[in-house]
Amino acid sequence: MTASAVLVEVTRGLSVESRHLGAVAVSDAAGGLLLSIGDVERPVFPRSAVKAIQALPLVESGAAARFGLTDQELALACASHGGEPEHVATAAGVIARLGLSADALECGAHWPLNEAAARALAASGAGPSALHNNCSGKHAGFLCLACAMETDSAGYIDPEHPVQREVKAALEGMTGVRIDEAAAGVDGCGIPTYAAPLKSLATAFARFGTGERLGDVRAAAARTLMAAAWSAPFHVGGSGRFDTEAMQLGAFRIFVKFGAEGVHLAALPELGLGVAIKIDDGASRAAEAAMAAVLRRLSPAEGDLAAWLDLRAAQPLTNWAGVEVGVVRAAESLSS
Amino acid sequence: MTASAVLVEVTRGLSVESRHLGAVAVSDAAGGLLLSIGDVERPVFPRSAVKAIQALPLVESGAAARFGLTDQELALACASHGGEPEHVATAAGVIARLGLSADALECGAHWPLNEAAARALAASGAGPSALHNNCSGKHAGFLCLACAMETDSAGYIDPEHPVQREVKAALEGMTGVRIDEAAAGVDGCGIPTYAAPLKSLATAFARFGTGERLGDVRAAAARTLMAAAWSAPFHVGGSGRFDTEAMQLGAFRIFVKFGAEGVHLAALPELGLGVAIKIDDGASRAAEAAMAAVLRRLSPAEGDLAAWLDLRAAQPLTNWAGVEVGVVRAAESLSS
Repeated sequence: MTASAVLVEVTRGLSVESRHLGAVAVSDAAGGLLLSIGDVERPVFPRSAVKAIQALPLVESGAAARFGLTDQELALACASHGGEPEHVATAAGVIARLGLSADALECGAHWPLNEAAARALAASGAGPSALHNNCSGKHAGFLCLACAMETDSAGYIDPEHPVQREVKAALEGMTGVRIDEAAAGVDGCGIPTYAAPLKSLATAFARFGTGERLGDVRAAAARTLMAAAWSAPFHVGGSGRFDTEAMQLGAFRIFVKFGAEGVHLAALPELGLGVAIKIDDGASRAAEAAMAAVLRRLSPAEGDLAAWLDLRAAQPLTNWAGVEVGVVRAAESLSS
Repeated sequence: MTASAVLVEVTRGLSVESRHLGAVAVSDAAGGLLLSIGDVERPVFPRSAVKAIQALPLVESGAAARFGLTDQELALACASHGGEPEHVATAAGVIARLGLSADALECGAHWPLNEAAARALAASGAGPSALHNNCSGKHAGFLCLACAMETDSAGYIDPEHPVQREVKAALEGMTGVRIDEAAAGVDGCGIPTYAAPLKSLATAFARFGTGERLGDVRAAAARTLMAAAWSAPFHVGGSGRFDTEAMQLGAFRIFVKFGAEGVHLAALPELGLGVAIKIDDGASRAAEAAMAAVLRRLSPAEGDLAAWLDLRAAQPLTNWAGVEVGVVRAAESLSS
């Protein structure tokens, strides 16, 4: 196994306090690697980073059109949202249109990831429901797909349910990898997550961004989902979130999505490339800094986008009194 | 440099999803290493893991006795507390006794680390003050010391203030390491933090736990602080926290304190040992699992303590629906 590389350092004063190892793959749609750092053959659970791929059947099947999903609703289907009021209302709207209630969601409830939203919810005297789960938009999409398939939606998170079989087939089709059932796990929201080699996730995102090596229907579905995310980036994440800000500033150029445990995937349609990053220890702060550095290196970014990527690739750390005490910075090797 | 070792693995299904590297030193009071994994010579910022050492001048100076600090108040001086109501009231009580207000605290304000406490505070319509800062007890102790030294408390977080000079001298005395000013950083609460070799932090904790190689006054102060923590372990952390539970179950046997960025230190008085752990990437989940495994290995724990350490050394991961999806487990090498 190729050794992992230091991708990100966290400094305090003049010292490096912590460091994050990981791997980076940049691929074209044919699977050619333009950049390979660390072990890119390793199987990685893509977790929420492939929500856009998991949403392909929703669009390809015609379910999204049949239920008239808006850009915001499609963006939310690809989201790990903050549980902010707009996110919750958007998920609730989809479910109501299906004639279902939030009880149909099988993702479990948790307090909003956005801390201000969580506190506001608590201040209102209410508690969280499944609608606040960061995956509620994806699950609303699964319910849409189940309705369109005219199958019972109950148990739609089970690997053998027709919805999850479609979702798995989409991942296999996009990565070109036959999923090994032994490499299955259960995701935070209850659906299966399947490990695939990091490089194949980069290839899948290159295909997602370009439509190359996909059929017309799939290529169109990918375009629809990217257009929705660029039209409604707030619905893919939320206030202050990396993916949201990257797509606000990088609309039509960058499609990017994080996953739990330090996974970050991006498509760069104009360059025909996909990017896949896994931080060995699962830290999102490191995945974000590494992704910013790789996007800055690859993309002909300028102006606000370039400045934002530079900031995110070397993010100052401030203490509770607002004093800058260090920085989370991508390693030099990522930038040059 | 000795390579870091895999100390903790995070599994999902049958796969290892993430892994944490780091180093472990177990030392006696003379500096003899009984266990050394990874690079134990590396300078490490001990952060909040040395709050008990930083509290030594408070006791040694007679300030704690003069202001009649209780066990709860002394425990809070060694704490990274959750900002739960009892913590806040205890810190406020100390400050009031000094004739000061919370404005004298220079640690900055943040929402309680304990999420339920943060939501309850939000629900009350209030916001956080410096009293909710996880370091407010330590800072209240600094104010006590400043009052007892009859020096202006303003600026007590500055490296050159008499309080911080005492605190630094205590760290140098306990570790036996002359602090290199180039190895200084600013901590989350605004005071200086000084990097010291990991093995010397283990030695310092062996001395703290046994009193060996300390003068009578310092040895007594260390006993006073440990007794306070064992008497009031809730005040060292809070609901559900590793250090609190370890000292509830391991009173008189284990004194343990985490610090930010994956540092965890422990004293085992009956064995005459100190333990120091640094996780390279800064993850507290890994520091806790590693510490639990090392304590289980070293300590003649039995009954509830043994069961608790076993659980914390291989902590199940559950998803939002409560399904067990994996485990955060210490590497075999730590247990045997």
